Amino acid sequence: MSDFKISGVVPPVVVPDTPDHKLDVPSFERLIEKLITAGVDGLFFLGSSGEVVFSTDERRDEVVREAVRIVNHRVPVLIGIIDTETERVIEQGKRAIALGADALVATAPFYALGGPVEVEEHFRILHEELDAPIFAYDIPVCVHTKLGWKMLAKLGAEGVLAGVKDSSGDDISFRYLCQENEKLGHPLSILTGHEIVVDGAYLSGADGSVPGLANVEPEGYVRMWKAAQAGDWAQVKAEQDRLNEISHIFDVTSGLMGYAGGVGAFKTALWLMGVFDSNQMPRPVKAMEGANVEAIRKVLTDNGLL
Amino acid sequence: MSDFKISGVVPPVVVPDTPDHKLDVPSFERLIEKLITAGVDGLFFLGSSGEVVFSTDERRDEVVREAVRIVNHRVPVLIGIIDTETERVIEQGKRAIALGADALVATAPFYALGGPVEVEEHFRILHEELDAPIFAYDIPVCVHTKLGWKMLAKLGAEGVLAGVKDSSGDDISFRYLCQENEKLGHPLSILTGHEIVVDGAYLSGADGSVPGLANVEPEGYVRMWKAAQAGDWAQVKAEQDRLNEISHIFDVTSGLMGYAGGVGAFKTALWLMGVFDSNQMPRPVKAMEGANVEAIRKVLTDNGLL
Amino acid sequence: MSDFKISGVVPPVVVPDTPDHKLDVPSFERLIEKLITAGVDGLFFLGSSGEVVFSTDERRDEVVREAVRIVNHRVPVLIGIIDTETERVIEQGKRAIALGADALVATAPFYALGGPVEVEEHFRILHEELDAPIFAYDIPVCVHTKLGWKMLAKLGAEGVLAGVKDSSGDDISFRYLCQENEKLGHPLSILTGHEIVVDGAYLSGADGSVPGLANVEPEGYVRMWKAAQAGDWAQVKAEQDRLNEISHIFDVTSGLMGYAGGVGAFKTALWLMGVFDSNQMPRPVKAMEGANVEAIRKVLTDNGLL
Amino acid sequence: MSDFKISGVVPPVVVPDTPDHKLDVPSFERLIEKLITAGVDGLFFLGSSGEVVFSTDERRDEVVREAVRIVNHRVPVLIGIIDTETERVIEQGKRAIALGADALVATAPFYALGGPVEVEEHFRILHEELDAPIFAYDIPVCVHTKLGWKMLAKLGAEGVLAGVKDSSGDDISFRYLCQENEKLGHPLSILTGHEIVVDGAYLSGADGSVPGLANVEPEGYVRMWKAAQAGDWAQVKAEQDRLNEISHIFDVTSGLMGYAGGVGAFKTALWLMGVFDSNQMPRPVKAMEGANVEAIRKVLTDNGLL
Repeated sequence: MSDFKISGVVPPVVVPDTPDHKLDVPSFERLIEKLITAGVDGLFFLGSSGEVVFSTDERRDEVVREAVRIVNHRVPVLIGIIDTETERVIEQGKRAIALGADALVATAPFYALGGPVEVEEHFRILHEELDAPIFAYDIPVCVHTKLGWKMLAKLGAEGVLAGVKDSSGDDISFRYLCQENEKLGHPLSILTGHEIVVDGAYLSGADGSVPGLANVEPEGYVRMWKAAQAGDWAQVKAEQDRLNEISHIFDVTSGLMGYAGGVGAFKTALWLMGVFDSNQMPRPVKAMEGANVEAIRKVLTDNGLL
Repeated sequence: MSDFKISGVVPPVVVPDTPDHKLDVPSFERLIEKLITAGVDGLFFLGSSGEVVFSTDERRDEVVREAVRIVNHRVPVLIGIIDTETERVIEQGKRAIALGADALVATAPFYALGGPVEVEEHFRILHEELDAPIFAYDIPVCVHTKLGWKMLAKLGAEGVLAGVKDSSGDDISFRYLCQENEKLGHPLSILTGHEIVVDGAYLSGADGSVPGLANVEPEGYVRMWKAAQAGDWAQVKAEQDRLNEISHIFDVTSGLMGYAGGVGAFKTALWLMGVFDSNQMPRPVKAMEGANVEAIRKVLTDNGLL
Repeated sequence: MSDFKISGVVPPVVVPDTPDHKLDVPSFERLIEKLITAGVDGLFFLGSSGEVVFSTDERRDEVVREAVRIVNHRVPVLIGIIDTETERVIEQGKRAIALGADALVATAPFYALGGPVEVEEHFRILHEELDAPIFAYDIPVCVHTKLGWKMLAKLGAEGVLAGVKDSSGDDISFRYLCQENEKLGHPLSILTGHEIVVDGAYLSGADGSVPGLANVEPEGYVRMWKAAQAGDWAQVKAEQDRLNEISHIFDVTSGLMGYAGGVGAFKTALWLMGVFDSNQMPRPVKAMEGANVEAIRKVLTDNGLL
Repeated sequence: MSDFKISGVVPPVVVPDTPDHKLDVPSFERLIEKLITAGVDGLFFLGSSGEVVFSTDERRDEVVREAVRIVNHRVPVLIGIIDTETERVIEQGKRAIALGADALVATAPFYALGGPVEVEEHFRILHEELDAPIFAYDIPVCVHTKLGWKMLAKLGAEGVLAGVKDSSGDDISFRYLCQENEKLGHPLSILTGHEIVVDGAYLSGADGSVPGLANVEPEGYVRMWKAAQAGDWAQVKAEQDRLNEISHIFDVTSGLMGYAGGVGAFKTALWLMGVFDSNQMPRPVKAMEGANVEAIRKVLTDNGLL
């Protein structure tokens, strides 16, 4: 079983771009400092909301290099090594390790069609080839494969996986996974990526969360985690209620689909809050403008963030 | 509108691997020679069945370099530049152009969620950044986005796209696309990737086909194309009927999903026919063994290919 | 194997409603006469576009009774017996037989989750319990189950099924089914429901078509069928091209989803053409109004139907 | 806003069949008594696991009549009025009201394609036509439409809906719905149908649950509800943990899909526990046999239920 354990709040860090599509290092540094100051327990770079699939390998390396430099060992650094199939993922992993990643986060293979046999073999190969703890990233909305909880628990018990980052939207499977993990001696660090229902995930037995919305409001997620550890579930729910009001930055805009409205909302909020210098998006996505920006400003104002 | 036109049979070339997962160049050369000798009109490398998403960038470059060398300008070389989002696809495209590609084949962005606005912008950026004809590769089973025929026709008329490689499984959309393309002066070269219904696609007005099964039996597809050009539809259908019998190499195996059973069937057939030295698959996929190999051998024997 | 054979054009008849949601018998009679006069080979009532799932059992009986009366044995009458699971479908079938149906059309079970075992058992039970030829209606967009061609061919050979009405949108499966049916001695009458690609289906070997658009323009489909029988494929394609122009009544409207835009277009066209007295839709669907009606009028005018 | 309120545990009652497919009234009576004795707060008949779509109208009436007679006003009786489209659902509702239903449970329209406009209109019409409280049944796995939480909350505030029975598997949407319902003054009684994560749903603010597994072990669900009301979340989780071990009756069988393995597990457990006289299933589904029965017996034994 893996020695690497993590718990608490591990935000998936949003990446700021300059108008000419470079990495905006000063903005990036401000966001990382904001998160560490708020008391987060780790940081996850190059996740789905961390522009991983929009970034060339050169850009990915730059993100990792700057992240490792800025974080400077204050919290563990998890790096997403998202790519289509095994050999490509291995390459992403080797570069991330060389640049200082503490743990790696990999999805099931995607694009080519396969089944559970290939998925399990994929994670076994990654474990053999990469000298770092591996987290399975369960995100069927992007990779179109759901990771079975029985397979995940088994790979945890065998030491192939160190943890799971669950963005599957399947709370039943998540609960079975937590329960089975407990019965096996808790080999896996299990983190939920669903920022809206972190309260339920904690009650299910999750070890922590990877909430995108923590980019905007980390303090609430940190308080929620402390309340959960203290068994104060009324407080856990109250924090979640408050965070969910802020989360309406996702649904007050119009005419945007997917990344443009989701990560776009984070970037626009961080820009309005003075953390980012702009809300620039990676090509081919356009930055929010006009009424959509104002709608987000109103949510932030109504919730005391501006 | 693009100057690049292609018609006829353009097989998506399967890539042979050695047991230690290197490119098996002698086998690759035998297959390419077999296809050109049969009279194909072009070759498509690094398509979905050409191991593109399983290949590191270094391996992709090797495939393109060897393909360009072996083909040696006898037919046009199309190269798949499959990657998740725009900047990464541009990089794949620049390398392919530098190595001698005649045209490039790109899918919609995938992994990150988006909508038609991002898809159209993606193709426009590719056209601006890449100095080669661009084919849109419509393959929702892999990228989970269907390319709308109205958008494709418009991008053809504007010269953004040179053609479409349709693996969408949507014959209605395909037929509307062909009909609209005709009304616009035929800017797009439209190729179907559905090897089982090439006859219907030709009747719909397709300019050609990209049949995976042509790796195994190119002569039949070449004859079918000639019959279609001659307006001999009874012969077109008869050729398709015969090819479909061979296509049962896809469904006589058991216990295999997706790539393992599809491209695995091509590789196993080519191995049994003496074209490939093995039926090795890329990691994490396992090569067919035992009864599955024998089932494929029987189909080939029954259809006179062994 | 079933004695019931049918071929040619078998329109799925659209049902007119009065403003107070009664069956509009005079309009219904005008449409049926129009179709028979045009030379169709059969009529399919209570199909998906025949308001079957919107109709109470009493209304269904009225539709069948009036249809049988009006048709008066001039062509065969097929009746859709669409309901969720086996016992309910049997009841629909018994009533339809009692009212004079020549053949019955049944989907896979729906709503409850199941698999191929239940689907096959369902059709076997229907055959045992219902004394009429049974057509399998393959319409996964509505019932969320695709009927496998191997199962359909087997049930045809065993005499369980008399035919297949394919609205699956899977032209590959359709072609395999036609080819296997031929090898088995043609037990099944295979009809395509995809009005836009009837030409390809005929080339694949279909016995006929069930084109919704034939409600609006039956003559074109009748000519296409005759051209197909004569082997004049250029004419087949030309007829399909012309019909597809008319089919843009489906996509010139805006703000409508599903039935409202599809069957709504047929009803609006028939109303504009004077066949129906209104374009009333069944609850909860609203009738088209304003600009949408005008958009359909323009398509009809541009194509010489007004 | 509706006067009808319900909270607590409301099992969806499984229906026993005799070997010749009649309603097994003595078994039905034993199950209902078992549930009421355990302290449930209501009973839901003719839900998805209550054989509603397998039952003819005559059988549905028999189930409602017997249920009303046996329950005899000891707890509220909710009746599923599941049918394809509005007019048919109205008929189901009128008959259920006449037979004594306290509240009705209706899904979105299904089979015909539509959109949110039709769904909202459907519920409005049901409210107008049916003189009983209406619960919206959100079960996209069966009807392939997800009910939006904003629409549900609005229809609650307007008094169109009395409650929601959520089997959507979307815990994010569920949590937003509970939170919005609270802000609107709690017009809706919100019940979760996901028996495995009732703990999280209660923390989210659910008013109760509709757990299929409560057919087998109602006492645990009753204790969990009381613990939730007392704010004893450690106990809530412990009860859920224990119930989830019993829930493995769903996944210890093999070769079964959907209803056969789900409701089949309930029926087999109730048979082994002596509540039902058999585990007969409705056509076309087969009853579990052999090793599958033994696997379920083992789960029950291991968890002290035998």
